[in-house]
Amino acid sequence: MIPDSISAGQHDAIYNIFSLVIASQLFAALFMIACLPRILPRYRQAMIVAATVCGIAAYHYFRIFNSFNSSFVTDSVGGKGDYTQAAGEGFNEGYRYVDWLLTVPLLLVELVAVLALARKLQTSLLLRLVPAAALMIILGYPGELSGDNSIRTIFGTLSTIPFLYILYVLFVEMTKSLGNQPPQVRSTISRLRILLVATWGVYPIAYLLPQLGFDGAAAWTGKQIGYSIADILAKALYGLIIYRVARIKSFADDPSFAENELSVEEAREVLGNSERAKSPAGRN
Amino acid sequence: MIPDSISAGQHDAIYNIFSLVIASQLFAALFMIACLPRILPRYRQAMIVAATVCGIAAYHYFRIFNSFNSSFVTDSVGGKGDYTQAAGEGFNEGYRYVDWLLTVPLLLVELVAVLALARKLQTSLLLRLVPAAALMIILGYPGELSGDNSIRTIFGTLSTIPFLYILYVLFVEMTKSLGNQPPQVRSTISRLRILLVATWGVYPIAYLLPQLGFDGAAAWTGKQIGYSIADILAKALYGLIIYRVARIKSFADDPSFAENELSVEEAREVLGNSERAKSPAGRN
Repeated sequence: MIPDSISAGQHDAIYNIFSLVIASQLFAALFMIACLPRILPRYRQAMIVAATVCGIAAYHYFRIFNSFNSSFVTDSVGGKGDYTQAAGEGFNEGYRYVDWLLTVPLLLVELVAVLALARKLQTSLLLRLVPAAALMIILGYPGELSGDNSIRTIFGTLSTIPFLYILYVLFVEMTKSLGNQPPQVRSTISRLRILLVATWGVYPIAYLLPQLGFDGAAAWTGKQIGYSIADILAKALYGLIIYRVARIKSFADDPSFAENELSVEEAREVLGNSERAKSPAGRN
Repeated sequence: MIPDSISAGQHDAIYNIFSLVIASQLFAALFMIACLPRILPRYRQAMIVAATVCGIAAYHYFRIFNSFNSSFVTDSVGGKGDYTQAAGEGFNEGYRYVDWLLTVPLLLVELVAVLALARKLQTSLLLRLVPAAALMIILGYPGELSGDNSIRTIFGTLSTIPFLYILYVLFVEMTKSLGNQPPQVRSTISRLRILLVATWGVYPIAYLLPQLGFDGAAAWTGKQIGYSIADILAKALYGLIIYRVARIKSFADDPSFAENELSVEEAREVLGNSERAKSPAGRN
């Protein structure tokens, strides 16, 4: 539940972390667009999706930031006293769920796209991952809205079912298809999946806080900060790792692209390391 | 500490310098993106990071500018009288720290990226520089917030430790790897490091003002102007010097690129000076 009042320190912490998320997502998105020519065309779809995810998140955090600013106000000079909920529209937690409904399925699309698997396998993975991700978000929302802990528990549990199914597809089904990837890509994808699970794990923990007996201003502040950090890691950092995967795969696919993109020293290392280095397939 | 009131002159000086920073950072970022085709692909990563840094700084100075405008208000006609702190949200010094947390590690990434060293060496430098930079900023923040000079001193001192470590890595460790760089690049990198130390030196001086007995409206105005000028030099000017390094290295790597980019006279000079001029490696 949104507390009636928060301290100046809690206000400033939330305020600054929301701004940090806006800056991180917006400039991660622009960075990814600027870096498109630095990977082979076949991996650009994944990067464009990654940039879209960060752009959507930046938009929602603009909304969240403004919603927070207009719903918590203070009469103190220089913002040194407590902030209380103002009359009018309250803080809208719904922005997060709208954001996740769009971005979480796209995060899974990114992952599948950068692997550039056979199209049939891609379709089969996405037909299972995308609906499960959407279902996971939709089922969480009624619980988030409710102040009743038993309703939170019911919807939290329902939402966990598609989450576990996504983990099954990522760790069991997808693993079967990683055999064809260069070794450096295999290890990066493993780390990417762990990042995904670790950051996605923050959301249920933040969601569970009220059931665990944490409530009031401090718990609510913790939840906002937790969601914010998780969003930076799960979208901006995750997208940058997708970029790294795309770079490694581009170099492995086309040594002449690597020579063009890297210094002589770097190219020698990369091509020496790549088991898949083969004859030039044309410059980009 | 933020003063309760500032004079019209102090207000106008801060107001105008904040706007100067926005213009400098925003157009430095756009300039760098526009100049990407004027360097070889292998140096573009450094320039994209430089543009990202300036973009992030422009965003934060928009916020700082707006925060300043809403927190200091005047009743005088035409803004000729004193400005006092308004009721409501105060001036948010936190934006600077959020900005530095993102940009300072990226400034070090730029420097390492433009050198195009062997990848192992790059990774080893960045694994030391980036966490040290983040730690330096995080440790400074509690001191900045505190009005208590002994707390400022403790966190200021703690924050100096990673700063000294960064200097050690830049001036001792990195120097070992500069032997392979063209002579003009070596001297430019030396100047770049001196610029970095000189501008980064402004921040601790501004931070120390209260401990040194300077306080009140004049000292606070000085701190805002000092931080602003340091941010222009350390990000926009620094990024432009990175661009210069990337140009020199592009010409040295590929004479045909130099001939394409320069007038006949310029090219003769540049290629004559370059020890590393070698046969064309293909146009870009």
